[in-house]
Amino acid sequence: MSSVQAVVEAGGQPATRLMERLERRMTALARSHGPRLGQYAEEMLGAGGKRLRPLLVFLAAGVPPPESEGLLRAAVAVELVHSATLVHDDVLDGSPLRRGRPTVFASAGRLAATATGDLLFSRAFAELAGTRSVASIRVLSRASSELATGELMQRADAFATVPTERYLERCRLKTAVLFAAACELGAIEGGGPVAELAAFGEQIGVAFQLLDDVLDVSGPPQRTGKPRGADLLDGTVTLPLIVARERDRELAALDIRGIRTPDAAAAVCRRIAATGALEDSRRRALEMIVEAKAALPALPERQRSALELVADGVVERYA
Amino acid sequence: MSSVQAVVEAGGQPATRLMERLERRMTALARSHGPRLGQYAEEMLGAGGKRLRPLLVFLAAGVPPPESEGLLRAAVAVELVHSATLVHDDVLDGSPLRRGRPTVFASAGRLAATATGDLLFSRAFAELAGTRSVASIRVLSRASSELATGELMQRADAFATVPTERYLERCRLKTAVLFAAACELGAIEGGGPVAELAAFGEQIGVAFQLLDDVLDVSGPPQRTGKPRGADLLDGTVTLPLIVARERDRELAALDIRGIRTPDAAAAVCRRIAATGALEDSRRRALEMIVEAKAALPALPERQRSALELVADGVVERYA
Repeated sequence: MSSVQAVVEAGGQPATRLMERLERRMTALARSHGPRLGQYAEEMLGAGGKRLRPLLVFLAAGVPPPESEGLLRAAVAVELVHSATLVHDDVLDGSPLRRGRPTVFASAGRLAATATGDLLFSRAFAELAGTRSVASIRVLSRASSELATGELMQRADAFATVPTERYLERCRLKTAVLFAAACELGAIEGGGPVAELAAFGEQIGVAFQLLDDVLDVSGPPQRTGKPRGADLLDGTVTLPLIVARERDRELAALDIRGIRTPDAAAAVCRRIAATGALEDSRRRALEMIVEAKAALPALPERQRSALELVADGVVERYA
Repeated sequence: MSSVQAVVEAGGQPATRLMERLERRMTALARSHGPRLGQYAEEMLGAGGKRLRPLLVFLAAGVPPPESEGLLRAAVAVELVHSATLVHDDVLDGSPLRRGRPTVFASAGRLAATATGDLLFSRAFAELAGTRSVASIRVLSRASSELATGELMQRADAFATVPTERYLERCRLKTAVLFAAACELGAIEGGGPVAELAAFGEQIGVAFQLLDDVLDVSGPPQRTGKPRGADLLDGTVTLPLIVARERDRELAALDIRGIRTPDAAAAVCRRIAATGALEDSRRRALEMIVEAKAALPALPERQRSALELVADGVVERYA
């Protein structure tokens, strides 16, 4: 997200310093489990990620954020859970590359990658235990449970026609709960309005996932790093297809189990795009962002505008 | 372990009631994530396991144990972490059966099983967050990290000749840390001597793993549910082979990468057995049990004998 730097700057010197400390902590963590994990996980934990979730933790705590050890730990924990789910997703998808570099799965194999993911999960809770905040641990463990539930739901729904409501609930579980948890953890540390900031995080998280799903259909592959229609090949039915099926009877009748090649998937993507479903899905995500910003509680002006910048950044990435 | 019932009885009525509440909680948990997880995880969480680790939690808290919600949650959390590692192990090993029933991996596939394991991990921390004890969360998250580190170490060591010390450290990481954590969590809830009880748990945990490794070589398969020498086929070098190599030059020269069939593995197992390495490995485990019991701190008599019964049970299973 090109706007991350702008958001960090909006957070002031303390936000910049916290982001630097976060990077150092992630690197130190990767190295603290011996050369083996260092080798496996350093590229996963190291710089390269957008660090969007830690940034939300910091900004939800205040602008400028308090430079407390507890806040740093909360941000590290959220990013560790995120990294753990990425490592496991790469195993499950058999992905060779992430962010243009070999995945832990590709370089170390299925077994090491599964164990590395488990380790990152456990380390997340260890980080948070250091904050002595049971409330924070409850927030993160609930979010982690929901992430896994979302993954299970996606598998259960594979190749099936799902109503929009179910699709949105899946977006919430797979993605938005961690955005919400990031905001909640920041609000707990900063003493801000927890429920309202969590709701903000959740809404921009759903929009984030929705736009990600649009991008899977729209491409271009150079931008997404994967061929168009990867979700279709997976059996993952997302909003663009749901909407397109209401408009195109052939798409409505199509059994996506029959889509077996990248070329076939790309053809279906073009057909989805032809219905205007991509624009409508994008519009829906943009509306969510607008609503999320409008529903922000009374906050100091600098904090509000920094959070709005994050929300805009979610969209900008897909503009 | 045939002696679990005897140990539960030694723990008195409160221990029996806690074990019953544990079973109910595990069943309720399996069902609380909708029919999907219920379907996947009920057999994993349901009755069938030995519940050795929860029992340690209860008895380390006192005999009779205090029937507190916190103690129950600690026991549930430990068993959830144990279940999560089993689910992931089954994925990694591609195991069709566990305890004579289809694994989550076999019935639901790799993706659902990985997500189910992640869910069980997260639920463990959610349970513990309910105890409001940050110390307990720290204990469990450290143990979980070490379990994953142990798994990584085993993969790193695959097919390599390792010294005994490294092997024992691996036993500690992959198994004993969770026994130690069980005792620690119980001691924290019960107000007992935490470090000493953790040391007891660790020592019987190493003995447990060592005897498990002996059983892999000794068989019989009817008892272990897997063919003799599964570890060899995996590349996992355990104490019997380490000891046997000191006595048999052909075994010392053998490259275990060359062992590719169950028959070849069984032949190597017979050769290991012929050196007397199994008896020596077993003896070493029994010594650990004796030492663990001798090193128990000053405890009320009923608690001491109940913990000794657990230690003996670890051995009895393999007598």
